Amino acid sequence: MTSDPISDGVLAGDARAIARAISLVENDAAGAALIGRLFPHTGRAYVIGVTGAPGVGKSTIVDRLTAVIRRAGLSVGIIAVDPTSPFTGGAVLGDRVRMSGHAVDDGVFIRSMATRGHLGGLASATADAILVLDASGKDVVIVETVGVGQDEVDIVSAADVSLVVLAPGAGDDVQAMKAGIMEIADIFVVNKADRDGADHVVQTITASLSLKTSGADEWRPPVLKTEAPTGAGIDALWEEISRYRQRAADARAGRRRTREATRLRRLLSQQLFLRAERALAPGEFDRLVDAVTARELDPYTAVDRLVRGVVSS
Amino acid sequence: MTSDPISDGVLAGDARAIARAISLVENDAAGAALIGRLFPHTGRAYVIGVTGAPGVGKSTIVDRLTAVIRRAGLSVGIIAVDPTSPFTGGAVLGDRVRMSGHAVDDGVFIRSMATRGHLGGLASATADAILVLDASGKDVVIVETVGVGQDEVDIVSAADVSLVVLAPGAGDDVQAMKAGIMEIADIFVVNKADRDGADHVVQTITASLSLKTSGADEWRPPVLKTEAPTGAGIDALWEEISRYRQRAADARAGRRRTREATRLRRLLSQQLFLRAERALAPGEFDRLVDAVTARELDPYTAVDRLVRGVVSS
Repeated sequence: MTSDPISDGVLAGDARAIARAISLVENDAAGAALIGRLFPHTGRAYVIGVTGAPGVGKSTIVDRLTAVIRRAGLSVGIIAVDPTSPFTGGAVLGDRVRMSGHAVDDGVFIRSMATRGHLGGLASATADAILVLDASGKDVVIVETVGVGQDEVDIVSAADVSLVVLAPGAGDDVQAMKAGIMEIADIFVVNKADRDGADHVVQTITASLSLKTSGADEWRPPVLKTEAPTGAGIDALWEEISRYRQRAADARAGRRRTREATRLRRLLSQQLFLRAERALAPGEFDRLVDAVTARELDPYTAVDRLVRGVVSS
Repeated sequence: MTSDPISDGVLAGDARAIARAISLVENDAAGAALIGRLFPHTGRAYVIGVTGAPGVGKSTIVDRLTAVIRRAGLSVGIIAVDPTSPFTGGAVLGDRVRMSGHAVDDGVFIRSMATRGHLGGLASATADAILVLDASGKDVVIVETVGVGQDEVDIVSAADVSLVVLAPGAGDDVQAMKAGIMEIADIFVVNKADRDGADHVVQTITASLSLKTSGADEWRPPVLKTEAPTGAGIDALWEEISRYRQRAADARAGRRRTREATRLRRLLSQQLFLRAERALAPGEFDRLVDAVTARELDPYTAVDRLVRGVVSS
């Protein structure tokens, strides 16, 4: 592999190079070449995924957890994924500014991602950004996602450990469970534990978990209470993450293999589509769309024609 | 096109055939043939998309709106999309049972979809289910989605008109705006209008909208207040939907073309991937995943090799 200033800078841990590299993988086809150069230097960072409904206090938990990890002598990269509306582009920045305690710490790199235009979607952009931080030598990478859609589930379930954050409040418990994130939690965090209803949330989760039959060896997701603003419970959270990391070494290898397989499938799908677009005659796609819109052709037949022009068989 | 009992039944508006047809397109490759037969009979129904955070009262609004549409002499098909956790599989059913007023009405067909396994994802399954209801002669199809992820945004923005529902309560306004659904709203509905904070939600939306410069001809999303349990504001909502439908006839044609183009791209991507899977030598994909996991090969190079084996160039 050839070298270049950006990948050299990333491998040296230079913050400016890291920032430029993430912009590249986020926006540019050149990202593929960069990932090719960085990839041999990845696979070392421990990736923590954090998700939960808006307003439960994820950012503050990540902030306090980062402080605990730093005290343990480890460096941290943070990716805050927020498919923010153009109307409120400032919200993420606001969240990040709150993490100002770490802004002057060389051992912490913080980046918000709000990409909608990325070819492979947020999941691809985030996976590449994790690789950049991993290559830069960060010991721990935290990926925080707002919202509870399929993209967010994919991102967080690809981490080495997945934290699901809940908080007492109207509908918050139902919300988390409805969104299908109960299954991906390795650790549950009930934040705002000083508020009324926190114990109810804990009980609801525990009751849901008890419906699952689990083998003797299986990890049983603990349910931890935190008060992020005061830092209460965050040390215990880090201990639990460390316990999961040690206990789940085998599972982690399997999980990483699954992660790579998922990434390859996603990339394969993107690349095939790009090739198909290039292989089509000018206007061919538009003509088929017109025919389908006019109900002269059904979509499955239309796609059969497109595929036959592209795939060797 | 040949006929068969299921497609004949759907075209005759038979509820049992509709239910079987939706199960087919949801679960089975046979769905493609069925869609091929039904497709020439589609394009007539008016599709209303409804989304918003959990707990804002979407189901009740859909229930009341259905009653208003029925009184106008139109038939209604309802698809409630809920990527529900296996833990809480009963929640959707509970929601639906609440709509019992329509359960004995032949002019209303109600179906919940909670598909995670569908090849093309929820968006494909939902699009096909809409086609089935359209072909069955339903005048209006309402698609209600829980959650605010990219899947939900895709589903709702593909409708002829998109309703975004909000309600006063901790974080609900921020929540909607953060999730990037402000842009897809043709009509905003502030439900639970009798509660404290409803006017604040209205003001927040209105302020956000005023940031958008809009042309003289452009539709300016109205912000309506409703109290779904009492039905207050639902007549006005239906009037607004009808007004949008009439005013936006040109835009609607363009939107439907975009919808078909999106569907073709999605199907093309799926089909290419399926062909690729079939074209690969046994174990080839697994070997590449192993090499990537071991950091012997980067993912982009691995995918290049896969693509070269599949695409004629």
